[in-house]
Amino acid sequence: MKRAERIAAITRVLCETPGKIHNINEFSEMLNCARSSVSEDIDRIRSAFEKLNMGKIRTISGAGGGIQYIPYVDVGYYEEFVKQLCMIFSQKDRIISGNFIYTSDVIYNPIMVDKIAQILAYSFIDVFADYVVTVETKGIPIAFAVARLLKLPLAVIRQENKVTEGPVVSINYVSGSTRNIKTMYLPKKAIKANSSVIIIDDFMKAGGTAKGIVDMMKEFESKVVGIGVFIATKEPQQKLVSQYVSVLQLNGIDEKQGLIDIQSGDWIKNFKKIEDFQ
Amino acid sequence: MKRAERIAAITRVLCETPGKIHNINEFSEMLNCARSSVSEDIDRIRSAFEKLNMGKIRTISGAGGGIQYIPYVDVGYYEEFVKQLCMIFSQKDRIISGNFIYTSDVIYNPIMVDKIAQILAYSFIDVFADYVVTVETKGIPIAFAVARLLKLPLAVIRQENKVTEGPVVSINYVSGSTRNIKTMYLPKKAIKANSSVIIIDDFMKAGGTAKGIVDMMKEFESKVVGIGVFIATKEPQQKLVSQYVSVLQLNGIDEKQGLIDIQSGDWIKNFKKIEDFQ
Repeated sequence: MKRAERIAAITRVLCETPGKIHNINEFSEMLNCARSSVSEDIDRIRSAFEKLNMGKIRTISGAGGGIQYIPYVDVGYYEEFVKQLCMIFSQKDRIISGNFIYTSDVIYNPIMVDKIAQILAYSFIDVFADYVVTVETKGIPIAFAVARLLKLPLAVIRQENKVTEGPVVSINYVSGSTRNIKTMYLPKKAIKANSSVIIIDDFMKAGGTAKGIVDMMKEFESKVVGIGVFIATKEPQQKLVSQYVSVLQLNGIDEKQGLIDIQSGDWIKNFKKIEDFQ
Repeated sequence: MKRAERIAAITRVLCETPGKIHNINEFSEMLNCARSSVSEDIDRIRSAFEKLNMGKIRTISGAGGGIQYIPYVDVGYYEEFVKQLCMIFSQKDRIISGNFIYTSDVIYNPIMVDKIAQILAYSFIDVFADYVVTVETKGIPIAFAVARLLKLPLAVIRQENKVTEGPVVSINYVSGSTRNIKTMYLPKKAIKANSSVIIIDDFMKAGGTAKGIVDMMKEFESKVVGIGVFIATKEPQQKLVSQYVSVLQLNGIDEKQGLIDIQSGDWIKNFKKIEDFQ
């Protein structure tokens, strides 16, 4: 194969597996050429990507080392996207009686969900977790997309005990905003003991559900190492969980005036860390 | 930029946007070079991909034409994957009392879900739909992944009426296997009139739920153009919906003997069409 063809082939493999470490031998075998040629090819790919801001090709030395494609995280791009979300969610026809906001079109739209999930996944890129955990129903697509990006299995807590799930662990928890006592259920098989988990959900008000998941993880002898939500309300400021990352912060809904006050959440703090790394 | 660098850049763009038609001008502007050079670069990428079975670079002529990356659909690869699924689901510790089978680890595992979704999405590649529709809860990740591949919005039907969804359309339906009457709910805003939808779910027994969705779509003045399920049971052979695609067919569970009889579903028929296209 000619150099140009080898470069096309290597670029394709790297782009399809962001984050994965590839040994040089893998490419020299695939392309039936010398390791030195592969190394030269990779230098050219690296230089092209750097010139065009397409991401980084990192070289990791030592045993288990190789090369790795790190997609470029453009903070400005996500800031622009979050601004767009704020505009979408400020439209008054989104208000649902009872001081709620209609989100289903956004949280079930794969293009939107992928970007929301990227924000949350990048926020937890330096956290080593074994599972992503969510509660049915509306958080599932975002949680699934985060799990996909972090290459982790997802566990979905049910709000009803279903016969198809087998033996479950159940806990009672107090919904932080309505003060109702509810029960949630997770199959015993869903989480192995001594695991670390990231909680992802679409909405957080007082944090009662998140607190319930934290308690449930104790029953699985596991711990929560990160909490990420799509929308967190400003009030109550004192949540039942201490730390979380939000994409959007909902300051308030004025049903009479038809006004929704929403702004960017605090995800940007975590992104500053990634920028330093780049 | 040198040819090698241009090839790396073009390959990356093509691989990140499978199916999308790119005009040659887009690349000549991005790389600041002549259209003829881009065309030569693309010939080299095409030849590398063909030699290594990495997919096709199609040229579409005429206005709105350009080049398009079509990932390689390897039927054998999916046959192997489905065999592996059958082995996973034949293990007797998957049996849950009451003649159920534990599937949550598979249907919530992003790597598995992506492959299952590819099988279902490729089955509907020549069907023009506007939405993917599912019912909560366990079908959501697969349905979301199918929607993602087909670049369609997802609509999730609820089994309870939630205040956060706003005005809903509800219908009663008869669960085909238990003969219970149930109700399902979908926000009025979820589907525009005169749409075509694909139903995706994790499990089908008698097809009562799918039939319910078909009826509900009538209330939205929309029609169902495809039904895909992860697992369909062999019995009852007469389902309440006439046509569907399944990844797996569950022939039966023998709780006493600890045996699960499961085999590949009929997805392969649709794949033969795609192979002809390649």
